[in-house]
Amino acid sequence: MRPNRVRQLLASGQPVLNGWLLLPDSLSAELMSHAGFDSLTVDMQHGMIDFQSALSMLTAISTTQTTPLVRVPWLDPGLVMKTLDAGAYGVICPMINSRQQAQQFVAATRYAPTGNRSFGPLRAALYAGDDYALHANDTVLNLAMIETAQALDKIDDILSVEGLDAIYIGPADLSLSMKGKAVHDTMEGDIGDAIRHILARAKAHNVFAGTHTSSTQFALKMLELGFRFVTCCNDTRLIAAGASNAVREMRGGLKQ
Amino acid sequence: MRPNRVRQLLASGQPVLNGWLLLPDSLSAELMSHAGFDSLTVDMQHGMIDFQSALSMLTAISTTQTTPLVRVPWLDPGLVMKTLDAGAYGVICPMINSRQQAQQFVAATRYAPTGNRSFGPLRAALYAGDDYALHANDTVLNLAMIETAQALDKIDDILSVEGLDAIYIGPADLSLSMKGKAVHDTMEGDIGDAIRHILARAKAHNVFAGTHTSSTQFALKMLELGFRFVTCCNDTRLIAAGASNAVREMRGGLKQ
Amino acid sequence: MRPNRVRQLLASGQPVLNGWLLLPDSLSAELMSHAGFDSLTVDMQHGMIDFQSALSMLTAISTTQTTPLVRVPWLDPGLVMKTLDAGAYGVICPMINSRQQAQQFVAATRYAPTGNRSFGPLRAALYAGDDYALHANDTVLNLAMIETAQALDKIDDILSVEGLDAIYIGPADLSLSMKGKAVHDTMEGDIGDAIRHILARAKAHNVFAGTHTSSTQFALKMLELGFRFVTCCNDTRLIAAGASNAVREMRGGLKQ
Amino acid sequence: MRPNRVRQLLASGQPVLNGWLLLPDSLSAELMSHAGFDSLTVDMQHGMIDFQSALSMLTAISTTQTTPLVRVPWLDPGLVMKTLDAGAYGVICPMINSRQQAQQFVAATRYAPTGNRSFGPLRAALYAGDDYALHANDTVLNLAMIETAQALDKIDDILSVEGLDAIYIGPADLSLSMKGKAVHDTMEGDIGDAIRHILARAKAHNVFAGTHTSSTQFALKMLELGFRFVTCCNDTRLIAAGASNAVREMRGGLKQ
Amino acid sequence: MRPNRVRQLLASGQPVLNGWLLLPDSLSAELMSHAGFDSLTVDMQHGMIDFQSALSMLTAISTTQTTPLVRVPWLDPGLVMKTLDAGAYGVICPMINSRQQAQQFVAATRYAPTGNRSFGPLRAALYAGDDYALHANDTVLNLAMIETAQALDKIDDILSVEGLDAIYIGPADLSLSMKGKAVHDTMEGDIGDAIRHILARAKAHNVFAGTHTSSTQFALKMLELGFRFVTCCNDTRLIAAGASNAVREMRGGLKQ
Amino acid sequence: MRPNRVRQLLASGQPVLNGWLLLPDSLSAELMSHAGFDSLTVDMQHGMIDFQSALSMLTAISTTQTTPLVRVPWLDPGLVMKTLDAGAYGVICPMINSRQQAQQFVAATRYAPTGNRSFGPLRAALYAGDDYALHANDTVLNLAMIETAQALDKIDDILSVEGLDAIYIGPADLSLSMKGKAVHDTMEGDIGDAIRHILARAKAHNVFAGTHTSSTQFALKMLELGFRFVTCCNDTRLIAAGASNAVREMRGGLKQ
Repeated sequence: MRPNRVRQLLASGQPVLNGWLLLPDSLSAELMSHAGFDSLTVDMQHGMIDFQSALSMLTAISTTQTTPLVRVPWLDPGLVMKTLDAGAYGVICPMINSRQQAQQFVAATRYAPTGNRSFGPLRAALYAGDDYALHANDTVLNLAMIETAQALDKIDDILSVEGLDAIYIGPADLSLSMKGKAVHDTMEGDIGDAIRHILARAKAHNVFAGTHTSSTQFALKMLELGFRFVTCCNDTRLIAAGASNAVREMRGGLKQ
Repeated sequence: MRPNRVRQLLASGQPVLNGWLLLPDSLSAELMSHAGFDSLTVDMQHGMIDFQSALSMLTAISTTQTTPLVRVPWLDPGLVMKTLDAGAYGVICPMINSRQQAQQFVAATRYAPTGNRSFGPLRAALYAGDDYALHANDTVLNLAMIETAQALDKIDDILSVEGLDAIYIGPADLSLSMKGKAVHDTMEGDIGDAIRHILARAKAHNVFAGTHTSSTQFALKMLELGFRFVTCCNDTRLIAAGASNAVREMRGGLKQ
Repeated sequence: MRPNRVRQLLASGQPVLNGWLLLPDSLSAELMSHAGFDSLTVDMQHGMIDFQSALSMLTAISTTQTTPLVRVPWLDPGLVMKTLDAGAYGVICPMINSRQQAQQFVAATRYAPTGNRSFGPLRAALYAGDDYALHANDTVLNLAMIETAQALDKIDDILSVEGLDAIYIGPADLSLSMKGKAVHDTMEGDIGDAIRHILARAKAHNVFAGTHTSSTQFALKMLELGFRFVTCCNDTRLIAAGASNAVREMRGGLKQ
Repeated sequence: MRPNRVRQLLASGQPVLNGWLLLPDSLSAELMSHAGFDSLTVDMQHGMIDFQSALSMLTAISTTQTTPLVRVPWLDPGLVMKTLDAGAYGVICPMINSRQQAQQFVAATRYAPTGNRSFGPLRAALYAGDDYALHANDTVLNLAMIETAQALDKIDDILSVEGLDAIYIGPADLSLSMKGKAVHDTMEGDIGDAIRHILARAKAHNVFAGTHTSSTQFALKMLELGFRFVTCCNDTRLIAAGASNAVREMRGGLKQ
Repeated sequence: MRPNRVRQLLASGQPVLNGWLLLPDSLSAELMSHAGFDSLTVDMQHGMIDFQSALSMLTAISTTQTTPLVRVPWLDPGLVMKTLDAGAYGVICPMINSRQQAQQFVAATRYAPTGNRSFGPLRAALYAGDDYALHANDTVLNLAMIETAQALDKIDDILSVEGLDAIYIGPADLSLSMKGKAVHDTMEGDIGDAIRHILARAKAHNVFAGTHTSSTQFALKMLELGFRFVTCCNDTRLIAAGASNAVREMRGGLKQ
Repeated sequence: MRPNRVRQLLASGQPVLNGWLLLPDSLSAELMSHAGFDSLTVDMQHGMIDFQSALSMLTAISTTQTTPLVRVPWLDPGLVMKTLDAGAYGVICPMINSRQQAQQFVAATRYAPTGNRSFGPLRAALYAGDDYALHANDTVLNLAMIETAQALDKIDDILSVEGLDAIYIGPADLSLSMKGKAVHDTMEGDIGDAIRHILARAKAHNVFAGTHTSSTQFALKMLELGFRFVTCCNDTRLIAAGASNAVREMRGGLKQ
């Protein structure tokens, strides 16, 4: 089976640089996968992407060495399993708020006896190899999002779930849930304390920790703090900011 | 009929900033159209875009004030007419190399008596208004690409075609045709001379001149030289370069 | 943030005329949004429409002043949130049968502290403006469908849920659930009594009430009765009935 | 091979009622094909429809007894042949203005020895039966559009082309070409004279004549005049007009 | 209403030959439906197929006499109902492990008073006829998958659910759940005993039993054992195995 | 630049085994590319495939070592260039009947100075590498189809065109054109003589020769005769024949 490079990097103590895909388009995904990220996440939650688009994007990422991940929109076991069948090598699940939800999520990513994933790895076997079924449980990653005050409260319950590979902090939703306002890229105040606490507990439980950022500077800072998996940019911001900059430069130049 | 803002800008002596779309995706098109360009061109020639994708992109651009243009893949009158029916307010046609080709192109963008465009402006009338047919001939723009040694030779023949609104220089193809090598963003040597010559002849014929560039700096320089319509960035480069930069910054930061 | 015209009409005591979309096609949606409805609902339950089609339809509606709404297929919080991220200004949720279901639905449409909607308004911010997050809770509408005998029973429990904007009666399902037969456009008998009762209770709770009809005549009658939001026609019936009429007229004319 | 009902109707002297499809959607096509038309034309010229959409629409029409036709965007032999391979039982080609163009069009719809259609009837054989190749030349219809002053001039040249099944008048383009204005549904003045002349010449050459109308009344009138194939309504007008009527009735009712 | 041929075959004691669709493509579905199967199942669980693709495939199957079925990805009542609205004549639901799950599934496939299916049979009525609502409860089939150790334990609880038409054994998942390894096409050992037991209990409860196989030989053996509905081949295996065979024959021939 | 394995095999005297794709689906293309063919051809002529589908299929083939080729529907230079931009490593063009057509086709596949291909290799550069433009003229293959009596007549004119890489015989169309009947897989009679003649002339001109067959047996025979590039199977036949065989075996087994 094709190894999961993200898992290898995590195991060997190296950081994982993840890119984020929100556009429902395979060519954009292919361009992103030529940029050198270790992994790319197809975001089916806030991205404008459904299964058919996700499939074509996973295929496009598969033309390179970048590891394909998916964020599902919700704890929906059928869709977790279906994106794995489509060749995702890891699934990020939003809004894991309790031990029971974490167990249900982990189970959906593992075949028996350690889970209840249904058998039928169609495109997954094309991507991974014919021995997919033998090694999938040790290869595929699950990442539970910690992003609510409720989850913060239950952090040890969640982290102690057998088979959980990693947690992934969503700072915007976490701060929204804690303080009623979504903030990005800050370690100040209560949200900073919460993030440090989650990170410390993850280390204590030997669970990898990742987090979402919106700049390379902050992503580097998060790696320094001990995060092992960081997202530092997404396709829509690159387009929107790049295009605005180009227009600003042009308008500025014209004024002179 | 909704006026063509690009035509208005040209008529009033103001520059037109055009963005370029190569990804077959409506959300990306919508993001680009929020950046402030005067117009956006859906490139059906080198972009990975066919009619159905172009339609959804034209619709997305229509949610803003940005003027929607299309580049067709070839001098195919049926497709020129069909993209106009879909609501394009201008068509750029590649590889116009002779007076006869220029005439055929112009005719495809005009209803009788000045052309032979077939009648049936379906989505165009939704975008433009019910009086589309009355004003389309005076509203819709045609831009003939000058991008071969052959066209350079016949430049006055082409520019004197009745009804031609503008020419659009493709420097990569022009240099490829003249010197066997595609170059970008240069006014040096033979290619620079050729571009200056085409621009001068366009002015002499009272035909607007536009050109393709790949940086805001060079686009500004082209405006200074007298071009009135410049393309300065495209969606795929924004994604590809932005993503590569992000990875480079991260890798660089990690090494320290 | 772009105001929600449906909310404004409701607040100012004016009726809301809603159209219904069942075809998975953006051009048809755009045609409907040029007809003058106050709002259009993309029906992802009984319409043949999934997320990618819904996205292109919401984009098409956004080219006009018509307010875009979505009916989700089921109480699936992930999908409720995703359609809001795609720019829906209101969500109709079928089969709300208990206080707990109504609470779960309302929470999915509101950011903390009043709900648990996850943060990431991608296309929504393009449509609404950059201050979307600040005003979304006061702008976006939720409409809970009352359409079972069970819901009729629990009507006060449901209507007293904090944050519920409106209810929407589905007479076909309600009559099917009460009497084993789906009927349309009638105020006779038990179904009429039930509709009058729901309307009266909604007024008592200061919750707006809407209903589904299949003719303009009956829709007008419902407005007279006190409903504030009425659906009076859908795209598939217009096509199917219009086409049948045309054929009938032709066959009839031929016989003479 | 499944017989071509339109050809049978024409052969037996009965009128053919044709409906027109402009929306790129298979469900809408299926709804239209349940209305009772003898044939439906997928309009790839002014409709917002490309090949992949046309394929799904032809499939949808094939679930009923309605005969599937296609109008191609231009005299493009490759696309004429491809739509036949997709199962179209007839092709309407716009802008046939000379004997040579008519010959090229007819040839594209016939296998050797009477034409040069390339062999490979993939979906066509699923629709028609395994003996498709044996009978296609006698089954599939070609309809050349007469819609310019130029074509009017050459009408006998065009009508005398061996193998031409029918002509189809496009009154909007014909009047646009003759008088500089697109008109519909009129037999007044020069355009009326031209239509009568074309019809008379078609009869003289034993070629079936059809025409495009936009109302059942005018379509019936055209059948009385001797046309054998009439189009009387299209999907977009049904939606647009039906929706506008519904809104008008509602607004009118509210005012009372 | 168009009768359900699979139900008729089951009622008259005849075996049902089912084919399986994993490719998201309508033409492939149409090819399969010309092969002579009694029914075809669009697999939305392990197939790479979402709703929009499923709709186009159901339409393609509808061009023939083959009965269209769908396997949903999970016990999601909204999607069960939506695939029925799209014209599926039967739904297979995976992972039914308890009486309560079986009841919820059956209810989603039946209108009141025997279930809670929501009313709105859009394409279903096109396929089935205008009297769909009257007869759907007696026509549409539900098939609950028995494929876990847990379900084996509760087999009598599940089989005694009122309104359950059939069970469908998934041997791969069943063996995976029982023994930690997915096996196909075997009646040996514990898995063979389990299958025989489920079949015997189904007969005792007068519930039809079907099963999944991967060869015609084993499918025939299962019919001999008393199964009434067997799947014997799928589209992806036909392509993958057929292509590999062709290459092997070519490489072999070249070596000689 | 990624080398063209088909060109390498041809150069080194080894046979090329080509598979054929007619289904507009990327997963099917990916399955085929795992079977071991040297190349796969996306057939945009008789396959039900347009550009957007072709793009997703070329991407899917790119996940493997199989070389991606495209057959365009007609000698349309714009589409020849666009499929190359999408990453095709070779283009097969149907119906090349004269020296002029062969020249126009070859020119469309080559950048200046040897051709007139327009510059803009978007996805091609992702697939091939950043030095695509430098080596494309020596890497990309053009294959002209010889498939009419007219082409047979002009065979030396066509074969002597500078830059033509290969010819590809279409026996069905050739026999249809010569004898009025499409035959497959025969070397008998006139058609056999014609094929032998074309092959001999190709050798004399040092142009590679390929041919279309419908069985591995006949493909092997053609390789023995001296053909260097053979197509031996396609996706639709694998599905159609495989499915029919499965049904036949099942029905046969049931009868016993």
